Amino acid sequence: MTENRILFQGYHSKIISAKEAANLITDKMTVGSSGFTKAGDSKAVLPAFAKRAETESIGITLITGASLGFTTDNDLAKNNALYRRMPFQADAGLRGKINEGDIYFTDQHLSETSELLENKHLPQLDLAIIEAAYIDENGNIIPTTSVGNSASFAKIASKIIIEINESIPLNFKGIHDIILHESYPNRQPVNITKPDARTGQDFITIDPEKVIGIVYTNLSDSAAMVTAPDAKTSAIGKHLVDFFESEIEAGRMTPSLMPLQVGIGKVANAVMSGLAKGNFENLTMYSEVLQDSTFELIDSGKMTFASASSITVSEAYYKHLLANFEQYKDKIILRPQNISNSPEVIRRLGIIAINTAIEFDIYGNVNSTHISGTKMMNGIGGSGDFARNAYLSIFVTQSASKEFNAISHVLPMVSHVDHTEHDVDILVTEQGLADLRGLAPRERAKLIIEKCAHPEYKEALIDYFNRACIRGGHTPHILEEAFSFHTSYNETGTMKQNCLVNLL
Amino acid sequence: MTENRILFQGYHSKIISAKEAANLITDKMTVGSSGFTKAGDSKAVLPAFAKRAETESIGITLITGASLGFTTDNDLAKNNALYRRMPFQADAGLRGKINEGDIYFTDQHLSETSELLENKHLPQLDLAIIEAAYIDENGNIIPTTSVGNSASFAKIASKIIIEINESIPLNFKGIHDIILHESYPNRQPVNITKPDARTGQDFITIDPEKVIGIVYTNLSDSAAMVTAPDAKTSAIGKHLVDFFESEIEAGRMTPSLMPLQVGIGKVANAVMSGLAKGNFENLTMYSEVLQDSTFELIDSGKMTFASASSITVSEAYYKHLLANFEQYKDKIILRPQNISNSPEVIRRLGIIAINTAIEFDIYGNVNSTHISGTKMMNGIGGSGDFARNAYLSIFVTQSASKEFNAISHVLPMVSHVDHTEHDVDILVTEQGLADLRGLAPRERAKLIIEKCAHPEYKEALIDYFNRACIRGGHTPHILEEAFSFHTSYNETGTMKQNCLVNLL
Repeated sequence: MTENRILFQGYHSKIISAKEAANLITDKMTVGSSGFTKAGDSKAVLPAFAKRAETESIGITLITGASLGFTTDNDLAKNNALYRRMPFQADAGLRGKINEGDIYFTDQHLSETSELLENKHLPQLDLAIIEAAYIDENGNIIPTTSVGNSASFAKIASKIIIEINESIPLNFKGIHDIILHESYPNRQPVNITKPDARTGQDFITIDPEKVIGIVYTNLSDSAAMVTAPDAKTSAIGKHLVDFFESEIEAGRMTPSLMPLQVGIGKVANAVMSGLAKGNFENLTMYSEVLQDSTFELIDSGKMTFASASSITVSEAYYKHLLANFEQYKDKIILRPQNISNSPEVIRRLGIIAINTAIEFDIYGNVNSTHISGTKMMNGIGGSGDFARNAYLSIFVTQSASKEFNAISHVLPMVSHVDHTEHDVDILVTEQGLADLRGLAPRERAKLIIEKCAHPEYKEALIDYFNRACIRGGHTPHILEEAFSFHTSYNETGTMKQNCLVNLL
Repeated sequence: MTENRILFQGYHSKIISAKEAANLITDKMTVGSSGFTKAGDSKAVLPAFAKRAETESIGITLITGASLGFTTDNDLAKNNALYRRMPFQADAGLRGKINEGDIYFTDQHLSETSELLENKHLPQLDLAIIEAAYIDENGNIIPTTSVGNSASFAKIASKIIIEINESIPLNFKGIHDIILHESYPNRQPVNITKPDARTGQDFITIDPEKVIGIVYTNLSDSAAMVTAPDAKTSAIGKHLVDFFESEIEAGRMTPSLMPLQVGIGKVANAVMSGLAKGNFENLTMYSEVLQDSTFELIDSGKMTFASASSITVSEAYYKHLLANFEQYKDKIILRPQNISNSPEVIRRLGIIAINTAIEFDIYGNVNSTHISGTKMMNGIGGSGDFARNAYLSIFVTQSASKEFNAISHVLPMVSHVDHTEHDVDILVTEQGLADLRGLAPRERAKLIIEKCAHPEYKEALIDYFNRACIRGGHTPHILEEAFSFHTSYNETGTMKQNCLVNLL
């Protein structure tokens, strides 16, 4: 515990242990915690609260930026310490409880949670728990590897607990750009006209009167799992690179493309690796998360600037980044998630949004959240914020998966819709790329089946489409068969047998 | 034909007949025409082109603001003069051809069409046909009762035909506020911070070199059909007024509410009539269309200002408005539809968006466009622009319709999704209002069935939900039964028998 992390005199008496902090939480509180895709989360107080719930019947509504790191969400769920969770999660244990109906999960666009809190459309926030690199001389905090909803939580919550993380170097100041909206009806434009625009302050304002505890930690963020590109994800990356090159040739974009948003995961990483190999230059990013691939593009000189709400990287990159932080300081910004994901800024900058689908259908509707229409995976995250307002909205997935390609990810009808046909421009699988711009549903169906479907499912999809067209309609469907691929899988373990039955 | 409608000298030689103008159109042209919900449409050239297509094999891609008036869309469709139509339509004849697959319809968010054209994601615009009140001394035009996409069409199109409508009074200048975005990457914020903000010019810039013809007309816009509130629509209006009053009581809004967007139709009109009776004051509107009910609120002193992209009113109000235009001039603005429907402005102003659903499901997903999941009605219009970015996103519909309530509008699963669960805050039928803010899917299902479903369908919906819950999942469903209401209706003419079968 070193004194130079608290430069404000009034706070020294507030230093407490994580256990003491956890004891300040009462049953049914609504708690807002820092943390966005594992970065900058509460590493002491929430775990101590989960521990407390092992032996005590107590629970909270927990609102975060996005997913938490370590086993925090799992431990909270396991010990029945969560009544309600929002706006995103990515933990298998918590997911299980959500799907059993034991924990209420409210799946929100990541740009909207702070708006809903500000507008009092959600319960009043009793407590904010926010990780900080240090506290400045006015009692304000310098955030760590994410901003998420922390600035809004600090503004709205009745009480605040600060977690000072000593593993973050003291030069970690200057990369955050914090803006808070004025209240209605006095809102002003978000004055961001390029990814590197700086319009706010580089700290989060804290009312010292609200601070009820300061806890020290010394833990690094949970590391991101980075998977090397394989044949499928590389093929998807290649289709996208070819597409971007053809857009440049057609005069619609320059070799700098447009600012990029890329979702998390192995497909996204493969796409970024593809960009590193293509004839692109002076790329920029206006996204949610800065990943290994972002820093690889920066290191290679292909990318000049990257804006997001968090840094979520592998252990190796995390160490490299913190040790060489000065060389990245003028190339990255972390913003509140309602600004990184702001509809206003996304449309103004003209973002290319690349996100992963669980499945999509022949008319271009995308399911990002639900397995078989019922079981929640992680949540919509920021994909809706970006897809709905992007210059180009791109969704990627593999055409089929499981042994013997038992699951087709291209379907007659998706079992849950997160992104409607109106918000999807380009679909990509390892099979190919379907450019849906300006097309009507029947045209889309033919193109999606031709370009994106796995060869083993093409015949069944064409058969469904042709028989649906006989019934007619702008968007031909046979409602009683629309989910036959899904129900076949549930009954027989493969979507294929059903396809064959349909063909008879 | 009077000279004072063309103040620019270079245009006098370009006056031609509607038939001559229609002959300037060639096969496969992409044509952009003024017209937004019947207002300010092409009343001479497009009808003359439809006539030409009676005897000639010729067709175009037609892009408008929204729907056209009179029988223009019908006549174009009937004579096979349309290869493709976007972004909206509301004509039974055209709709029939679309649903037969004879005409490709691209259903777009109304804010996006001009963006897609600017970004060259749609074909190059060969010709713009734009109605004007008159031409000023620089060759620029004063629009009439709508702006729609006209300013973008004029900027982008290679050639322009102007229709001067002499039925519009010459004092019809000063209510339009025209802004065009800078091209990427030089876009700036849309500087609108309140509904009455004026930030552009009150005319549409025209390059005189592009003008290939000027045609005179003297026809009023097609009148809006205004239906008086009935028991059902009045009940919906009352539920909403009660809700707004409770929001005021809870301190979340003032009696001025927030700027209103209200869709077209009888339910919307009933809601507006309800507002006229409630304890509201200094209301404002930031919407797409100004309807009779808007002017009634202005006349009664309840509404101080209304911004939209068109004026679509009954014949009586149309005459009254044109005859008394000076008294409304400082109370209304007409904007381009990418500004009236701008995601940026909608979120900044904090709009209350009230739109009509065809059907919604127990989890809060809304279908605004497709009958039985297949047959297009009109298109999504601006409902997505508003719902996705609104302060409150409200959808209204009747709980059941047809003889013996054969159709339930509250369903296990909607047959087409235009607005996802993430974008729907409040659902209202004549039965009641479901406030979904912050709720998880299982909570929403119980509330929607309780508050909104028709009594004759409640049992079947509860039964579906309970049996789905046994299977589990965040959003419980029985995929093979999800559309059983729809398929029952298709087979037996009622959704009810099926419900009873399910209960056995």
